[in-house]
Amino acid sequence: MGLLDYLDHRQFPIEEWALVESSVNTAIEGRTETLFAIGNGYFGMRGAPEEGRGGHQNGTFINGFHDTWTIRHAEEAFGFARVGQTIVNVPDAKVIELYVDDEPFDVATAEILRYHRRLDFNDGVLSREIEWRTSSGKRVLVRTQRLVSFTDRHLAVVTYTVTMLDAPGTVLLSSQILNRQDWKDEYATAAHAEALLEDPRQAAAFSRRVLEPRLKHADGPRQLLGYQAANSGMTLAVGVDHGLQTENVWTERGEIEDDQAKHLFKVQARAGTPIELTKTITYHSANGVPVRELADRCNRTLDRINARPIQDVFSRQKHWLADFWDRADVAVDGQPEMQQAIRWNLYQLAQSTARTDGGGIAAKGVSGSGYGGHYFWDTEIYVLPFLTYTSPHVARNALRFRQNMLPAARERAAELNQRGALFPWRTISGLESSAYYAAGTAQYHIDADISHALMQYVSATGDIDFLNRGAIDILIETARMWADLGFWRRPGAGPQTFHIHGVTGPDEYTTVVNDNLYTNVMARANLQAAVRQVRRLREECPEAYASMVQRVDLDDDEIQEWEAAAEAMHIPFDEDLGIHPQDAQFLEKELWDLENTPASKRPLLLHFHPLVIYRFQVIKQADVVLAMFLRGSEFSAEQKRANFEYYDALTTGDSTLSASTQSIIAAEVGYRDLALDYFRAALFVDLGDLHHNTADGVHVASTGGVWSALVFGFGGMRDHAGSLSFDPRLPEGWESLTFRITTRGSRMRVQIRQGSVSFALEDGAEVKLRVRAEAITVYPGMPAEVSLQDDRPDLQGAPTTSDIEGTHRGDGSVITASIPTITLHEDQIQHAN
Amino acid sequence: MGLLDYLDHRQFPIEEWALVESSVNTAIEGRTETLFAIGNGYFGMRGAPEEGRGGHQNGTFINGFHDTWTIRHAEEAFGFARVGQTIVNVPDAKVIELYVDDEPFDVATAEILRYHRRLDFNDGVLSREIEWRTSSGKRVLVRTQRLVSFTDRHLAVVTYTVTMLDAPGTVLLSSQILNRQDWKDEYATAAHAEALLEDPRQAAAFSRRVLEPRLKHADGPRQLLGYQAANSGMTLAVGVDHGLQTENVWTERGEIEDDQAKHLFKVQARAGTPIELTKTITYHSANGVPVRELADRCNRTLDRINARPIQDVFSRQKHWLADFWDRADVAVDGQPEMQQAIRWNLYQLAQSTARTDGGGIAAKGVSGSGYGGHYFWDTEIYVLPFLTYTSPHVARNALRFRQNMLPAARERAAELNQRGALFPWRTISGLESSAYYAAGTAQYHIDADISHALMQYVSATGDIDFLNRGAIDILIETARMWADLGFWRRPGAGPQTFHIHGVTGPDEYTTVVNDNLYTNVMARANLQAAVRQVRRLREECPEAYASMVQRVDLDDDEIQEWEAAAEAMHIPFDEDLGIHPQDAQFLEKELWDLENTPASKRPLLLHFHPLVIYRFQVIKQADVVLAMFLRGSEFSAEQKRANFEYYDALTTGDSTLSASTQSIIAAEVGYRDLALDYFRAALFVDLGDLHHNTADGVHVASTGGVWSALVFGFGGMRDHAGSLSFDPRLPEGWESLTFRITTRGSRMRVQIRQGSVSFALEDGAEVKLRVRAEAITVYPGMPAEVSLQDDRPDLQGAPTTSDIEGTHRGDGSVITASIPTITLHEDQIQHAN
Repeated sequence: MGLLDYLDHRQFPIEEWALVESSVNTAIEGRTETLFAIGNGYFGMRGAPEEGRGGHQNGTFINGFHDTWTIRHAEEAFGFARVGQTIVNVPDAKVIELYVDDEPFDVATAEILRYHRRLDFNDGVLSREIEWRTSSGKRVLVRTQRLVSFTDRHLAVVTYTVTMLDAPGTVLLSSQILNRQDWKDEYATAAHAEALLEDPRQAAAFSRRVLEPRLKHADGPRQLLGYQAANSGMTLAVGVDHGLQTENVWTERGEIEDDQAKHLFKVQARAGTPIELTKTITYHSANGVPVRELADRCNRTLDRINARPIQDVFSRQKHWLADFWDRADVAVDGQPEMQQAIRWNLYQLAQSTARTDGGGIAAKGVSGSGYGGHYFWDTEIYVLPFLTYTSPHVARNALRFRQNMLPAARERAAELNQRGALFPWRTISGLESSAYYAAGTAQYHIDADISHALMQYVSATGDIDFLNRGAIDILIETARMWADLGFWRRPGAGPQTFHIHGVTGPDEYTTVVNDNLYTNVMARANLQAAVRQVRRLREECPEAYASMVQRVDLDDDEIQEWEAAAEAMHIPFDEDLGIHPQDAQFLEKELWDLENTPASKRPLLLHFHPLVIYRFQVIKQADVVLAMFLRGSEFSAEQKRANFEYYDALTTGDSTLSASTQSIIAAEVGYRDLALDYFRAALFVDLGDLHHNTADGVHVASTGGVWSALVFGFGGMRDHAGSLSFDPRLPEGWESLTFRITTRGSRMRVQIRQGSVSFALEDGAEVKLRVRAEAITVYPGMPAEVSLQDDRPDLQGAPTTSDIEGTHRGDGSVITASIPTITLHEDQIQHAN
Repeated sequence: MGLLDYLDHRQFPIEEWALVESSVNTAIEGRTETLFAIGNGYFGMRGAPEEGRGGHQNGTFINGFHDTWTIRHAEEAFGFARVGQTIVNVPDAKVIELYVDDEPFDVATAEILRYHRRLDFNDGVLSREIEWRTSSGKRVLVRTQRLVSFTDRHLAVVTYTVTMLDAPGTVLLSSQILNRQDWKDEYATAAHAEALLEDPRQAAAFSRRVLEPRLKHADGPRQLLGYQAANSGMTLAVGVDHGLQTENVWTERGEIEDDQAKHLFKVQARAGTPIELTKTITYHSANGVPVRELADRCNRTLDRINARPIQDVFSRQKHWLADFWDRADVAVDGQPEMQQAIRWNLYQLAQSTARTDGGGIAAKGVSGSGYGGHYFWDTEIYVLPFLTYTSPHVARNALRFRQNMLPAARERAAELNQRGALFPWRTISGLESSAYYAAGTAQYHIDADISHALMQYVSATGDIDFLNRGAIDILIETARMWADLGFWRRPGAGPQTFHIHGVTGPDEYTTVVNDNLYTNVMARANLQAAVRQVRRLREECPEAYASMVQRVDLDDDEIQEWEAAAEAMHIPFDEDLGIHPQDAQFLEKELWDLENTPASKRPLLLHFHPLVIYRFQVIKQADVVLAMFLRGSEFSAEQKRANFEYYDALTTGDSTLSASTQSIIAAEVGYRDLALDYFRAALFVDLGDLHHNTADGVHVASTGGVWSALVFGFGGMRDHAGSLSFDPRLPEGWESLTFRITTRGSRMRVQIRQGSVSFALEDGAEVKLRVRAEAITVYPGMPAEVSLQDDRPDLQGAPTTSDIEGTHRGDGSVITASIPTITLHEDQIQHAN
């Protein structure tokens, strides 16, 4: 598949350090609103134009700012989640409407002579340059800049410059704050409302007022609006200030209402004399702080910014990004299309995480309302590796966020009749918000995922102090949950085994099973880490140990119980097929014949009832394969290849979490081309809208997966048990792959070429590592290069269900593939023609 | 457990042919509204007083008269049920308010000198006799009678007689039709609304107007109101007429509004001169008939009834019931308390089924709105045996109802990607309305249950013509579904086996499993019946066969496929334990230690998340045990006992469908006392409110189960493959058990005594049967008696989980019991003290 399948470069010309758009295409405006969204992890603005009309979802989102609603299950049961949480589209402060001689400017319908939009990865600015011809034939040049600041957490800036090119005219700029959330009749389209009902991946819509007006205040060109979310009680203030620079004659006036503040500039513009409006914007939100206090904070932010030239904000942005790229850039020589896409993905990671500070990292970051603005396990497994190895302080914040969620997780465990803590499958506030337990609450593995990310962070950074100061409670309460959830079986002879029943693994096409391989492998690691860290703490920091024992009421018996459970953990393995069954019964099921499932029937979840899907061997996303990545040292090379070949054939990739992991293991077991195909599928998830829902926001986990596929996949980096190693496998046609990782305070540049890998310290003390079997120490100022001779198999093609079909299984039966009856209705048949 | 635990005979004195209440107890008014509800299968009135105040749910229900609503799943998926259906509380026409000297009469608060309420099983009349002292000290005698006619499907009659006993007074009778459904503010209590949210067994409540007023018409004392349900479009008319008889002076006047019609009689009553108001009531409803036409039907019914003395209605009622008891009575000598309870249960069967005619039989009959007025498999498995053997024409109607539902069932199968037909788990209209698929849609066994009931009806009645005329399509389309749902496994050696994965059996504490024993056994029978009947039809009725082939597009290959699937159906069996696992993985799970689960934690479904329950060996209701009853000839005596002992220990009985089946098999395998305990648990489900939800309506399936436990359990009757047999086991202390069954047109009286069983034909030709091994033919006029010598074991006590604990399993492991962590919150601990 060529890259042109993914991104039309006539509309989006290739640039290595920017995403550029050269024409307006309203047919994909939902997608471009996401691709050109800007944010800093605390808040974000979608890429809708300043002029504010039309659009798919003209959204502004503050991380974690949500309202609640009561989940009404059509049929109730004990312990079902009750509190729905949905991120709120907060008032839109970027609006600047432009009228020339009373004619409104709307990019979607105007006569555009020239159009250039650019999200610059170095400047951190979204800019437009548009030449418009009005219906009376006047040419108008519109230049805009928009940034959400990485350095000033609560700040955004919009500059809006208008120049009448060849005739004078009356230019009206109507700068607004608009509460779109409660302005539905005018802005929401019926099609969007319909889509919300049809697609389970979309956010639940509110059908009532969400933001109660609490404050409105205007002081000349400065305007403030304050709100409180009706049910959650969260508070919010948004403030704007304006500065107009022009040599034309102008007047201004303001209006303010509950859901809209307007400041209007009326300019008698001469030809060639620019009008430049600078709008500073600030958002402050809280849980428990009065709106009035937030308004004060808005005033202070605006005062501080206005006290210095606005260019300072732009310089700080650029400086911050320079530092970011120093830590996080991944360069691929000779592949400009991919290079652009890689940087766009990495840039999204910055935009989703930079200033979350104490908050979580949502599935869509702050780029859209998909998945209701919720936090999932995606963060820990797909995003934290990037943060841990490039921005450890951000990783630490994300883990502290989970630590702060422990009390809610303890309550949830009790509700599900377990000891310890059970982290919610999806949440904003810490309360479980998943209304479909089979693919939600049943994914107990989230406990192990969080523990995994915590230990990965500690191991990579050496920040043992973080554990000692309380993060160890996460390990303890999750280990406790596993020991209580599982149970022992006592065979007449042979050692006892420990089993975990009735859970769902990462693969959501197989639910509520016994001994899910991923879960058992990860739970084992979780238990082991808890045992190890508790014992270490007792030895190294008796005081911290004593305080911990008091906090979590721990005794020695319990630690021994964890150790025993880990040791005896049942890891299903099928000797005949030489593979790890995804769960105890997985191999008993019919094979779904994916090769013969038409594209019109995908993704399966939108075309088949869950009961149908669950009945087959068919996979939404990497499950055993993910376990082989995260706990790679616990599988032999032979097992890895056999598992990969078996499961790859069954994997639909209907989840965007799949491709990057499949790419990493494909690279490891020797499917070099397939690894590249999967990498592209991850790389263009959003740029190519491969899952048809980019309009709902960036797939942040996939952007993390892109980094992982580059570093862990092609770079072959592993960090099992604190031992850093590299086994690179550069795709054919790539001249080089260059990335930086930060480990235990040292920043190291890694460059892979065909036939060699080199390491250079850019900061910090020496780093020990291995390249395949060879041990190396990289010292400051002394780059090391190792030549690589690839003697591993280079496997071609991709495994398919027909490879599996006909295989003999342990019970002597032969695996056969079938495809569920597909009933084509009249209209579908016609559509198929 | 004594009977007094179940029913307080100080309040409810024992009478063998009536349920009697001797005092008002508002604390249990929800329960008594159900116990004294009257109905005829087409419509029913709950036992709230005529005076119309207070009450738990003052309801009137027409079978199948429902409104629809859109099910909004908190998280959607393909194929989830979308159309909620809820029975409507239709306008209440029984209201007659009484005022004496302007003081309203309200049994709940009035000073009652004497109170007697009686539901008479011979007369079919609910009557009251009450002596009331007004606050001014006047004694007033109130006598009421209420009936819903078994012979006139659309008719109810209320008579209301008032006599001032010792002083004159002004008596006002306000007779009304009141649309309570849309009169919420006044009548619904907040507590009830809250309960609706908490208990999944309750009906969904409407929060909008349901009945749109379409017609109001008054003509003297005759009043008519017409409505249309807002979403379903179903139409309804209700009419009343009045006749007042008294020697006092009186005046009358009427009022009519959208939601209320009133006719008032004002009487200057002399002491000792009675006032008798007769109110005739008629309901007509339809799907697709204009309200105006239904109003005409109401007028015709009222005209017809008014043309003759009202006593005719009462006589016809009595006559109908005499005939019913001739066919259906079960007499137990020497047990008056049980005798009363048995007759109450049988009377409920009449009230739920008599005049359903083309309609279904709802889980609550027409006695309440529990389960939304929906039809379930309960009808086929628990109610149809009673009908088939006592009122075959009613059984036939019920089966025709399912036949008419075939088009919707075909569509549902297609939605779930299956060929053939899949009957909805719960429905009124034919559309699947179950919003929780794991314990709803996944219960594919409903297809086999319907086929089972069909074949039982055909076999018992010999009504092969019913099959030939089209009911055979049910067998074909369900067999088709099974053949498509299941799949073949092809072992290297040995015969192929046929498997059914991803379904839920009757036990709702274990869901979405592979090879559920009940399902596989019943599906096999379904396939076999289809093969047999299709071949029979081809031989016996080539024309009917040709027409059938055209209707369902059947060919020989398909029939052979069914035969092969039935033959190779996998029936899980554990050689070591000598039992049939409930499903392929059931024995892999932890045992739930029921003995140590406190009563405060039951029923489990209200105290544990489904995921917790599903993880254990614990059973809501008979599953394997039910299969052993329905397909008894397919299990050996040894298997039956081993299975019963294993599963009985794990069965909570949290479903009211459980006790009767456990009783039948307990009796069969030799647990005589336990069988009686279970029988009582079924017998008093509602009379004793054992499941704390009798207020929602009668558990109709349990009433059918009571009949089954008497006839199949203690009577030991079986009818496997058309061969009638008896193996009675009379409980200790019972002098005799006498019942009638109708088989192939012959009605036979069966009387069991300790040590003998006798048969006498009451109608029809000779009947062949067996008593244990002995073959007997019963001829008209020649009763037969067989003496019984009981040499079977008489097992004492009841199996417990500790009997299972320590057992060795096939894999060499030992079964251990555990109890899930039970987290007692502060308030629960206090409650426990």
